[in-house]
Amino acid sequence: MGKQNKTAITPTRAEDYPEWYQQVVKASQMADQSPVRGCMVIKPWGYALWENIMRVLDDMFKKTGVKNAYFPIFIPLSFLEKEAEHVEGFAKECAVVTHHRLEKGANGGLEPAGMLNEPLIVRPTSETIIGDSFSKWVSSYRDLPLLINQWANVVRWEMRTRLFLRTSEFLWQEGHTVHATAEEAVERTQMMLEIYARLAEEYLAIPVIKGRKTASERFPGAVDTLCIEAMMQDRKGLQAGTSHFLGQNFSKASEITFQSSIEKEEYAWTTSWGASTRLIGGLIMTHGDDDGIILPPRVASSHVVLMPIIRKPEDRMNIMMYVESLAKELKDKFYHHCPLEVEIDDRDIGGARGWEWIKKGIPLRVEIGPRDIADNSVYVGRRDKGHRNRTSIKRDRFVGEITHILDEIQQTLFDRALLFRKTHSITLDDKLRCAAFRNHSTYEKYAPYGTGG
Amino acid sequence: MGKQNKTAITPTRAEDYPEWYQQVVKASQMADQSPVRGCMVIKPWGYALWENIMRVLDDMFKKTGVKNAYFPIFIPLSFLEKEAEHVEGFAKECAVVTHHRLEKGANGGLEPAGMLNEPLIVRPTSETIIGDSFSKWVSSYRDLPLLINQWANVVRWEMRTRLFLRTSEFLWQEGHTVHATAEEAVERTQMMLEIYARLAEEYLAIPVIKGRKTASERFPGAVDTLCIEAMMQDRKGLQAGTSHFLGQNFSKASEITFQSSIEKEEYAWTTSWGASTRLIGGLIMTHGDDDGIILPPRVASSHVVLMPIIRKPEDRMNIMMYVESLAKELKDKFYHHCPLEVEIDDRDIGGARGWEWIKKGIPLRVEIGPRDIADNSVYVGRRDKGHRNRTSIKRDRFVGEITHILDEIQQTLFDRALLFRKTHSITLDDKLRCAAFRNHSTYEKYAPYGTGG
Repeated sequence: MGKQNKTAITPTRAEDYPEWYQQVVKASQMADQSPVRGCMVIKPWGYALWENIMRVLDDMFKKTGVKNAYFPIFIPLSFLEKEAEHVEGFAKECAVVTHHRLEKGANGGLEPAGMLNEPLIVRPTSETIIGDSFSKWVSSYRDLPLLINQWANVVRWEMRTRLFLRTSEFLWQEGHTVHATAEEAVERTQMMLEIYARLAEEYLAIPVIKGRKTASERFPGAVDTLCIEAMMQDRKGLQAGTSHFLGQNFSKASEITFQSSIEKEEYAWTTSWGASTRLIGGLIMTHGDDDGIILPPRVASSHVVLMPIIRKPEDRMNIMMYVESLAKELKDKFYHHCPLEVEIDDRDIGGARGWEWIKKGIPLRVEIGPRDIADNSVYVGRRDKGHRNRTSIKRDRFVGEITHILDEIQQTLFDRALLFRKTHSITLDDKLRCAAFRNHSTYEKYAPYGTGG
Repeated sequence: MGKQNKTAITPTRAEDYPEWYQQVVKASQMADQSPVRGCMVIKPWGYALWENIMRVLDDMFKKTGVKNAYFPIFIPLSFLEKEAEHVEGFAKECAVVTHHRLEKGANGGLEPAGMLNEPLIVRPTSETIIGDSFSKWVSSYRDLPLLINQWANVVRWEMRTRLFLRTSEFLWQEGHTVHATAEEAVERTQMMLEIYARLAEEYLAIPVIKGRKTASERFPGAVDTLCIEAMMQDRKGLQAGTSHFLGQNFSKASEITFQSSIEKEEYAWTTSWGASTRLIGGLIMTHGDDDGIILPPRVASSHVVLMPIIRKPEDRMNIMMYVESLAKELKDKFYHHCPLEVEIDDRDIGGARGWEWIKKGIPLRVEIGPRDIADNSVYVGRRDKGHRNRTSIKRDRFVGEITHILDEIQQTLFDRALLFRKTHSITLDDKLRCAAFRNHSTYEKYAPYGTGG
């Protein structure tokens, strides 16, 4: 294999998909393993992507009347004991706080001291602790619906972890709502699923299938669990956002009752819904190629990198002035109501520089050297095309068209993922084919019940 | 005392300031005590204020080149053991995770199981865990400065807690930077202090004094601790944001070294800086009056509430149409680049409605009844004036001037607080007065070293 055919990521997807994934996360500088088993460090490039996802979701939530709040990270053990079915599913593997102090031990090191009367659990999800607040906040039908969300970290002690997909600590949002009728709660459950589907398709460029979980895959304690699932490039399904109709199960456990309009005391109907940093894992596995991640422009950590090509020191000032004025012009532009994010990379590190940005998946790479400046043009590479596929574009035209180019990339990513799914889907239209599929299928799922909510 | 002189909050500030504070937090619906000792539930009205503070700070940080990231919530015990002085100050009272599983016990309840080989500490601050990452991210002077911030929850096991001021779990941001020279790190320490001062004065309307902590009040492990302090209405000082020059102490403990431009291996110079939900406590104690909190318009959870006055059911539709068209007009306006936040409260609960919004501190209350509509005007109450001091203003004029009115309220709050501080300050210009002050002073501080960072 000649040098020119080499990929930036080793192994390739075809060679070893799970290992390719780990290498892409590392090469894209999205996240690191941490010294705490199963917990990740989200690096600035990965966190900026998460910030964009949070902004999009938060806006969509608020437009439906949801308000944000914050609840304690610790859950008293007795709260989990109240909700038997819930515990069965969740509380088995979780971080338990048993002491509230460290003291110098006999060997000079530190030892836990100050044992708690009741152990505290680091929240794996907050239904029980939020239910306690809701039981105080709700007394009449006039207080309903109650529509609350929190952005938080949660902990589920995972034995085998993979960055973003399955980690012991992860970041997410958890929405919790209370309603006067079952119909209204079911409607909210569906409304939030639609929001997750919109986030996935319109922003992350991930085509999803909306569906209902089987009884065995349901959220513990839920009456009904809806979710969106997407097909990854290894043809496995990934659950990317879930919305639960909890019926009156949690309101009975937490005593969330209300006086109805005919003055009858009733148990309320609740929902919960969540999406997490796992979305980033799904994004990588949907769009990544053998050169690294490809970021959909509408949530990209940054949209375009300008790379000055300075061969002679005496050219530096001129080139940098050109680059900086171009950067300023671009930063003044808006892409879907957000300012364009522009990077300038003037490091003198040769070809490594371009490859670094390819691996990080930035939508547009722009090279600017003395010849480009003389021609008043820029040399543009799109991340949705091959790395050698670059074109010279007049500066004015590039500035004028950049948001259209970004939209094109966004659409390409979605179309490609949809085609992939269609190509690798079969319709099971009779029992025989269904049985045959079950027996011989290589179809699998990522963590059907885990960090997705 | 006649009914008309009654205050919404009992006791008044003069009667019992600490108890007044607790009652204001409760009455303003900002936060609740939670069933987890020392942890608070931040309710939507309080969280919206925190979201605005986060937005302002985050923007200011990013303008100085800071990028956000996220680090694990757990810190291995051995990390704390490495930094002796740091531990002395922090690690005494903190939540310790010793187990990673719950199992059914003999009595049917749940019991901690799966003991960890090494206990994990829920972060009281993240210097040690972030230092570990930085030691991997930094290798050459070209990697510097490294400017990182994280928005996170932290836990310090407090024995006596007060909502927002001192809680076992609180929300904050912690910035951590690495520099090649001491001068640059000192400059960054000061730059971030200026940002906190700007947040306090321009947004929270809290006049602050910038200063340097004495050796005994310094952050454990810091070479120098700068902070902003404000005078509360009980004339105590409150520390509201801190910025630490850490010298090479943490880089030595975490082995953060870099190759200098003359190829010498050197320990880096680091800083850290933080502000927390305690700012909300400071805001309440600076601006609150005997009727509740007063929110400075530039960070207010909401700017204006419209209260339709519907005495006859047949008027409802007309009045609500008027109110909703006014709300739409107001929501289209911008106040310092953010859309105006407008509440409509059409609950039929009599005088309680107005008092509720006074206690919540919304800057403007607007009443709209049939007579106002006939006159095409609105009846406006400003929270910085007495609750009976209300004026009729023509609708068009109100819409046209609302942002000026909000700016006026913002300025009034700042001026009032500054005057209060000046009135209750004395200059100690010789040793004798200084000694006399020390002996007889009632001057005290809130938690000089605690949840402020």
